[in-house]
Amino acid sequence: MSYRAPVQTIRWALDIAGYATVQQQSAFTEASDDLVDAVLEEAAKFAEGVLAPINHDGDKQGARWDDGVVHTPDGWIEAYQQFYEAGWMQLSASPDHGGQGLPYSVGACVNEMWKSANMAFSLCPLLSHGAIEAVESHGSDALKSTYLAKMIEGRWTGTMNLTEPQAGTDLAALRSRAEPNGDHYLISGQKIFITYGEHEMAENICHLVLARLPDAPDGVRGISLFLVPKFLPDAEGNPGQRNDLRCVSIEHKLGIHASPTCVMSYGDQGGAVGYLIGRENEGLACMFTMMNAARHAVGMEGYSLSERAYQHALAYARDRVQGRAMLAGANGTNGIINHPDVRRMLMDMRAQTEAMRMLGLEAAVSYDIARHGDDESARAHHAVRGALLTPIVKGWCTETAQRVTYDGVQIHGGMGFVEETGAAQYYRDARITTIYEGTTGIQANDLIGRKFSRDGGAAFFALLDEVESVSLQLTQAGETALAQFGQQLREASDELKSLASWLLAEEREMHHAPAAAVPFMMASGTVLGGWMHGRSALRAQAALQDGGADTEFLTTRLALARYYGSVTLGSVFGLVQSAMGLGDAVALLDEAQM
Amino acid sequence: MSYRAPVQTIRWALDIAGYATVQQQSAFTEASDDLVDAVLEEAAKFAEGVLAPINHDGDKQGARWDDGVVHTPDGWIEAYQQFYEAGWMQLSASPDHGGQGLPYSVGACVNEMWKSANMAFSLCPLLSHGAIEAVESHGSDALKSTYLAKMIEGRWTGTMNLTEPQAGTDLAALRSRAEPNGDHYLISGQKIFITYGEHEMAENICHLVLARLPDAPDGVRGISLFLVPKFLPDAEGNPGQRNDLRCVSIEHKLGIHASPTCVMSYGDQGGAVGYLIGRENEGLACMFTMMNAARHAVGMEGYSLSERAYQHALAYARDRVQGRAMLAGANGTNGIINHPDVRRMLMDMRAQTEAMRMLGLEAAVSYDIARHGDDESARAHHAVRGALLTPIVKGWCTETAQRVTYDGVQIHGGMGFVEETGAAQYYRDARITTIYEGTTGIQANDLIGRKFSRDGGAAFFALLDEVESVSLQLTQAGETALAQFGQQLREASDELKSLASWLLAEEREMHHAPAAAVPFMMASGTVLGGWMHGRSALRAQAALQDGGADTEFLTTRLALARYYGSVTLGSVFGLVQSAMGLGDAVALLDEAQM
Repeated sequence: MSYRAPVQTIRWALDIAGYATVQQQSAFTEASDDLVDAVLEEAAKFAEGVLAPINHDGDKQGARWDDGVVHTPDGWIEAYQQFYEAGWMQLSASPDHGGQGLPYSVGACVNEMWKSANMAFSLCPLLSHGAIEAVESHGSDALKSTYLAKMIEGRWTGTMNLTEPQAGTDLAALRSRAEPNGDHYLISGQKIFITYGEHEMAENICHLVLARLPDAPDGVRGISLFLVPKFLPDAEGNPGQRNDLRCVSIEHKLGIHASPTCVMSYGDQGGAVGYLIGRENEGLACMFTMMNAARHAVGMEGYSLSERAYQHALAYARDRVQGRAMLAGANGTNGIINHPDVRRMLMDMRAQTEAMRMLGLEAAVSYDIARHGDDESARAHHAVRGALLTPIVKGWCTETAQRVTYDGVQIHGGMGFVEETGAAQYYRDARITTIYEGTTGIQANDLIGRKFSRDGGAAFFALLDEVESVSLQLTQAGETALAQFGQQLREASDELKSLASWLLAEEREMHHAPAAAVPFMMASGTVLGGWMHGRSALRAQAALQDGGADTEFLTTRLALARYYGSVTLGSVFGLVQSAMGLGDAVALLDEAQM
Repeated sequence: MSYRAPVQTIRWALDIAGYATVQQQSAFTEASDDLVDAVLEEAAKFAEGVLAPINHDGDKQGARWDDGVVHTPDGWIEAYQQFYEAGWMQLSASPDHGGQGLPYSVGACVNEMWKSANMAFSLCPLLSHGAIEAVESHGSDALKSTYLAKMIEGRWTGTMNLTEPQAGTDLAALRSRAEPNGDHYLISGQKIFITYGEHEMAENICHLVLARLPDAPDGVRGISLFLVPKFLPDAEGNPGQRNDLRCVSIEHKLGIHASPTCVMSYGDQGGAVGYLIGRENEGLACMFTMMNAARHAVGMEGYSLSERAYQHALAYARDRVQGRAMLAGANGTNGIINHPDVRRMLMDMRAQTEAMRMLGLEAAVSYDIARHGDDESARAHHAVRGALLTPIVKGWCTETAQRVTYDGVQIHGGMGFVEETGAAQYYRDARITTIYEGTTGIQANDLIGRKFSRDGGAAFFALLDEVESVSLQLTQAGETALAQFGQQLREASDELKSLASWLLAEEREMHHAPAAAVPFMMASGTVLGGWMHGRSALRAQAALQDGGADTEFLTTRLALARYYGSVTLGSVFGLVQSAMGLGDAVALLDEAQM
């Protein structure tokens, strides 16, 4: 099944998310509509023509480890070379070191296509972006001049080395060591779950490694960040001597088979040469710089895989004939697409995918303005909003993707369970997204324990005020169906607001909020998805009234919004009910009784 | 991770489901409590000691095809021999042909253990049971004398051959042919998705094959059922000449890797010898005989895998230490089991698994009484109830298992995504359960279109009356927590009832009910799970008041019921809301706009 990048829909979502405001900032005056359109069209061609065709075979072959060398599947090396030669790594990187300086939100639109076309491949540039951001934000000038341009060019890739066997979510338990040694440090320790920790696609790999100095304090205040290259650059800056690090094995995983997940060993021969990024013992702060973007990127994986799964299932549902179609207006065709329950799944998939994309880009726009806005108060406003949206985008989009890719398999019936069909790959690949870069539980606790509660819910309630405002506009738009949707959105938003108030009012056991965190986060995402659909519907309705050209596209937006209002928002009532019950119920059994 | 059969909990569930009534029937006077206990204890030993240890390696190795021969993983042949030599195939088979004649409900308890321990293995006896039932119910005396005793002994296994590439859900599209030829028929055609269609574990394989006679009417009224043995029995009844059938390939699947899913070709050399089961053109009726049991068995797979996933996740959550546990009463241990969100998942898993098991056994008890009840009106009552519960048990338990096994992976964090941990296997194995023996959509439409609506909802509302009665007893039990649970159960039941009435009252497009079918089915299962927990809680409370010995076991039942009431039942409100929205919303887009 081939992938078709939904360029028009992505562009629509970017506009709904307020891209016009991004363009108005002086940093982005060149990021015109024409340029964005041209970039999306080129990216679509690359995703469809280069990345999508090697996705399924890449999954079948998987990455292979052979005595420290990792072989990526056939075509990977060539595709990566084309990728960086076409300049895709540079898109939204800083122009100071060779980047094109386009807004992050535009980069997000492009990255969706990489993820949809070939998620396992896309992880390599994703990790590089994270490393680039850390070096750009915290690296010394010397580090920048030696590494950054090569990384932005894409000639060298990057990784993030956080996890150790005993230290996953809990980075305080890190044990990797860094000994000062002249102008550098000697790094030793074992890191696990290192995505693209070893491969032959690039000349060099820049590992960003968290480790402890000998005199470092315990806990997360004693962690420093180091750049540890696979090959030490020689005098000309080209890859020279092999550093003391190696990939000792790769994991056999449920999904993203083509992406090598490496166990990395540093310093077996005495210590790998590493260079400090930022200041000693402030490594965690450097990692936090990357965290919003990394979590947002994984949230995007949720809707990117959902989009691909939808396209795959839709094609099957059109072709496959079984029994008699019962859907009204089916025009006598018996494709299972016209069976009501199959159509329900397809509508669920699509309405949710579009909601996720719009909310994902809403967050991306906030990141752009928070970082590059001309107005200080706008920067501050969007910094808070972006931070609030991040765990929702990550948690809600990836959890929703589980159901969407599940339905993608389900629509295929027995054929969905057979790997050659390809539907199962999206389902397997999606499974990692609720785990890495912080599990759903971590996102939900970040939301409820920090983003939501630190200002007494102010930013959150301000967002719900905007939801209410959209619901009011829908109610007053002069169209019965939109008014109904506005009412549905208002009811769901009120329900969520009552949960939010309840959470703030409760002053009971300290476990109550974290126990309710996941349903609260899911309800938040679902309501905000409705908000985005509401804004989409209002704009589509206005465009139709103005005689907008693409009637079919515009009426589709209205129909998806109405579906979301009538069906998807319903789940909020269950989530809120469960969340309120959890506080007391979660601890009903002793540990020993479990 | 080893499996421990939860014998006490299974036995409790059997009692809650009303096993005492089964024992009162004259057919089952020998199925005493002592005998049942002894059978469960023996089955637990076999499941734990023989089947569980080869489950994970079986998944890794998978079944392999080599020129028509199928090799099952190491240990499979030996385990199967021990299985049938220990008499496990005979447990609930009819004594007329060597069975032990125990109730189906007792067999269900035992089968849960096979499924939990090793689902891929358990499919072989499962399919044999189906074949046995068809031959027992519809086979001629000659067929019975030649095949049945060997199949009940387990020396020969059985399969069901329904699906063809163009005919999955839609059996009317079947094309396989059967030509009369003396005392037998010559069968030809290709069948797909044939579980254990070929293997070396048994002396012979009895394929039950649906095919059309040359003069058969079109559609499902022109399908006949045949027994087509791999080896034709010789004069002594031993496997003789090879029949004209072969396995041409096996599928590469998402899960149940050790269970060969075969493409079978019949009659390449002129026709496979087959014997008619039942009458010509009435094959579908013969298949329907098996369908309740087969669907129920797959529903059981849902909770059996959930049980295993729970045990696996619980063990990990006890061992794994990360950060600081925040759950009240955690006694200073920092295992992630005491993180509120992890505990939430564990409680969800367990409360739902126990609800599913109790409802599954409730249906099994109905099957027993429907078939072997002494009283005619009880037989009729339970025939209707069993038929009504079947699609709910199949659909709801298997869908719920998706979330439970998902949470099982999630609790493992990154380790859950790594196959060697084993958690991912249950998740992958569970994925087939909502597909085979009729997808969730098929179950839901069977419920809403037949079981629910054919008597105007009478049987369904009668069940809800029983739910109400239990909720009333809970409210009046004199204990605040139980009264709260009774209230929660009543509210969820009322919500479901309002949906049921709404569905019956609606006389609009014919697609409205099938579009709402899945959420209706899920809401039904969830409420009925609460009903079972309510009955469990009442009995536990009474036992505690009587000074019941195992206080910890009894208070655990109460806690799980309360959790289910406070958290799980909440989802009913979302499901009902979505179901009511679906009727109109599902067809908002034209086929071309999808």
